Amino acid sequence: METPDEKLWLDRKIRSWERLWEDLEIGYLDRDIIDILVEFFLRPKSFTTSSCSGRIVVMDAEYPWDKEETMIIFKKHEPVTVDEIIEVVERPLAYRPWLSVQGPIIHVETLDIDEAFEVLEIARRAGFKHSGILASTKKGILVELRTGIRVNIPLGSRDNLWVDKERLRDIISLANNALRQAKDRLARLRDELRKARPASLWSPPSIPPAAQHYLKLLGVSPAVK
Amino acid sequence: METPDEKLWLDRKIRSWERLWEDLEIGYLDRDIIDILVEFFLRPKSFTTSSCSGRIVVMDAEYPWDKEETMIIFKKHEPVTVDEIIEVVERPLAYRPWLSVQGPIIHVETLDIDEAFEVLEIARRAGFKHSGILASTKKGILVELRTGIRVNIPLGSRDNLWVDKERLRDIISLANNALRQAKDRLARLRDELRKARPASLWSPPSIPPAAQHYLKLLGVSPAVK
Repeated sequence: METPDEKLWLDRKIRSWERLWEDLEIGYLDRDIIDILVEFFLRPKSFTTSSCSGRIVVMDAEYPWDKEETMIIFKKHEPVTVDEIIEVVERPLAYRPWLSVQGPIIHVETLDIDEAFEVLEIARRAGFKHSGILASTKKGILVELRTGIRVNIPLGSRDNLWVDKERLRDIISLANNALRQAKDRLARLRDELRKARPASLWSPPSIPPAAQHYLKLLGVSPAVK
Repeated sequence: METPDEKLWLDRKIRSWERLWEDLEIGYLDRDIIDILVEFFLRPKSFTTSSCSGRIVVMDAEYPWDKEETMIIFKKHEPVTVDEIIEVVERPLAYRPWLSVQGPIIHVETLDIDEAFEVLEIARRAGFKHSGILASTKKGILVELRTGIRVNIPLGSRDNLWVDKERLRDIISLANNALRQAKDRLARLRDELRKARPASLWSPPSIPPAAQHYLKLLGVSPAVK
């Protein structure tokens, strides 16, 4: 096992902290999840890289796990309407349309293996049961947090849909409901992180204006280094 | 992080080795996967506990991730026929029928964290991309190996199906095809394990007659302790 280099890891954490607030400004970031990401940054031995709060996508794919041949043709982090989906699945397709609900995914980089297992336990308490430690390199120990929430529905073949409009309505209501459950898990993760917050928090090198809002929301005022 | 106790871990490995051959005799064990389990046992610092070679199930559930309220009403580790599935989904149901294809899942217990990461790398090379280290206790470090192959199709509500027989035929052909891909990943895992086989192999306390067949298949003759 390769163990993380502390200097390299901390450099990445600071860069990721700065990018977090840049991404928020640009609109790249999923607002549903920012306070959770901040909770991870406040832990002295963790930070997050990519993350998703849960989403509904339509893929054009033979099978959605064949990543190379899969095209995401629709993506939304909130509930969808029947019309939005019909508009997408009626386009000409290369393979077939799949409607997929994906629960939240958060990638955490920890400085050591103890912290990795602690993050894993917090996540499991919040219902992120498909979480695991994926790799350990000089850059950090990568922990992936995932729930079991996953719907993957083939809606037809390239040329015709398997479901009529009425059925599609039922399927979409089911998908929206699954997405809601995914967002609920985020709330549970937020609570568990808060309960497990370390006594001494990370001191970021700077606190951008946008960050102040979220730190206030979390009720913390970390020292700036 | 709790580190495994070597004596406790080895006791469990020996018990699991013996149970493997008992389970095979009783018919509990999925024959598609035995040679892979044996490969793990041959590694001095690994053994497997539960495993599944991939299967098609029908669940009666509101959502299949609500484990408590989910009933598996059909399960098969090989391709299914349309008639088999129709027979199941036409029964009275409490929630709704879900047709689900689950790729292989293998639980490996390793003696140390280095072996855990090595197993993880072997698995990833074989296309088990959703694998991770789940926990570390006195009993061992638990590594779960999983592919991304997963179909989860709601087929209707409690009272009526969303798909007609013709469409069900298409969906089942897609499911069978996904199961075939799942089994192909097993073959890749077998190859990668073989390539990464350690120079010195584990010496089991005994080699039951059924085991001899599989050890011969793998081209190894480990010393008995």
